[in-house]
Amino acid sequence: MSIESKLIALGLALPDVPKPVGNYRPAKRVGSLVFTSGQTARINGVRRYVGKVGREVSDEEAYLSARDAALNCLACAGWAAGGVDHIVQVVKVIGFVNCVDGYDKQPAAINGCSDLMERLFGEAGAHARSAIGVNALPSNVSVELEMVFEVA
Amino acid sequence: MSIESKLIALGLALPDVPKPVGNYRPAKRVGSLVFTSGQTARINGVRRYVGKVGREVSDEEAYLSARDAALNCLACAGWAAGGVDHIVQVVKVIGFVNCVDGYDKQPAAINGCSDLMERLFGEAGAHARSAIGVNALPSNVSVELEMVFEVA
Amino acid sequence: MSIESKLIALGLALPDVPKPVGNYRPAKRVGSLVFTSGQTARINGVRRYVGKVGREVSDEEAYLSARDAALNCLACAGWAAGGVDHIVQVVKVIGFVNCVDGYDKQPAAINGCSDLMERLFGEAGAHARSAIGVNALPSNVSVELEMVFEVA
Repeated sequence: MSIESKLIALGLALPDVPKPVGNYRPAKRVGSLVFTSGQTARINGVRRYVGKVGREVSDEEAYLSARDAALNCLACAGWAAGGVDHIVQVVKVIGFVNCVDGYDKQPAAINGCSDLMERLFGEAGAHARSAIGVNALPSNVSVELEMVFEVA
Repeated sequence: MSIESKLIALGLALPDVPKPVGNYRPAKRVGSLVFTSGQTARINGVRRYVGKVGREVSDEEAYLSARDAALNCLACAGWAAGGVDHIVQVVKVIGFVNCVDGYDKQPAAINGCSDLMERLFGEAGAHARSAIGVNALPSNVSVELEMVFEVA
Repeated sequence: MSIESKLIALGLALPDVPKPVGNYRPAKRVGSLVFTSGQTARINGVRRYVGKVGREVSDEEAYLSARDAALNCLACAGWAAGGVDHIVQVVKVIGFVNCVDGYDKQPAAINGCSDLMERLFGEAGAHARSAIGVNALPSNVSVELEMVFEVA
């Protein structure tokens, strides 16, 4: 079953590859590794879940924000790898959560990415992960993720 | 002399591998690289050095927090590599310090990790490193580290 | 045309390799990858663009801060690779911007790095990139960058 079919079965879809806003690329491949650029929940140009978690953005929205950022990371990896079905495994995720001082549930937000990877790739979706809080993100989004994939 | 013997000689010990709090793993291996998940000073389940550096947590405690987070990173790398003695070299450290606005001694905190790596691995412990301040971390810990190791 | 010649043509120069302030190195090579340590705009020991973007540091200064941090990353990569002309391609950039809460133009700052890489390396300078806001950085600098290069 292809990744795109699995996404559809989950009620999701692979978004358009987000257009970089500078002299960089959606992702870069070196050997069998693909590093994605930082992605947000702006799916097909529509920005959602804007603001700080713990103030304008709820825990549930932060989870969805990480899930949608992960969809964009998948699209970027597919762009660099010649399609998402060339992904062999998920290696690493770092998730930055735009949050109020003292907010401490960043891992629950980044589960929005990790849960999706497990559903799409099973054991190959297991990854190393860091969840970090920050005081500001581009365009005031609530979550920014970057990912590393191994590709065929 | 094994890494565990060296730790004992330093009055330290390899902690239990921290249990992930989501669909991710303590570390992920790809080729000869192991990427750890973000680790904190929660050793064997006991959380220490909680709060912001520059307010609740002193510079000295931040140093120990980074040292203990590095011990957890070692445990994670050993989990992925079939034992810590399979570590060939330390490649990279990124350390996030939960701190008050304007705090500027993040490098002194992350020295708690770097000094330990030098003591355990000598020249092979030398690594690239970034030290970053942030306004919030999971469970309000004072330091979170992720590391990259080369393994045999 | 060598990288150093291209820098001179741009009115720039390769700085001295910044001295680490702890038990780490300017960069670390593993296989064909070089990971740099986090770099700032402190060129040849002179610290510039100090403070928070959105308060003491303007958008234009933040751009220059990222450009100068990128020059230091180049110097570090050259240190690890036996010269900057051994760089094959730029793989990845992560840029941390010390900024006020709610500041949202981190990508414009990190363009100072990305634009320079494009000018120096052309298509080989294209990279994956993340731009992140934070509330504090070492020595209160406005931008800290770490980079990954592929080297020959």
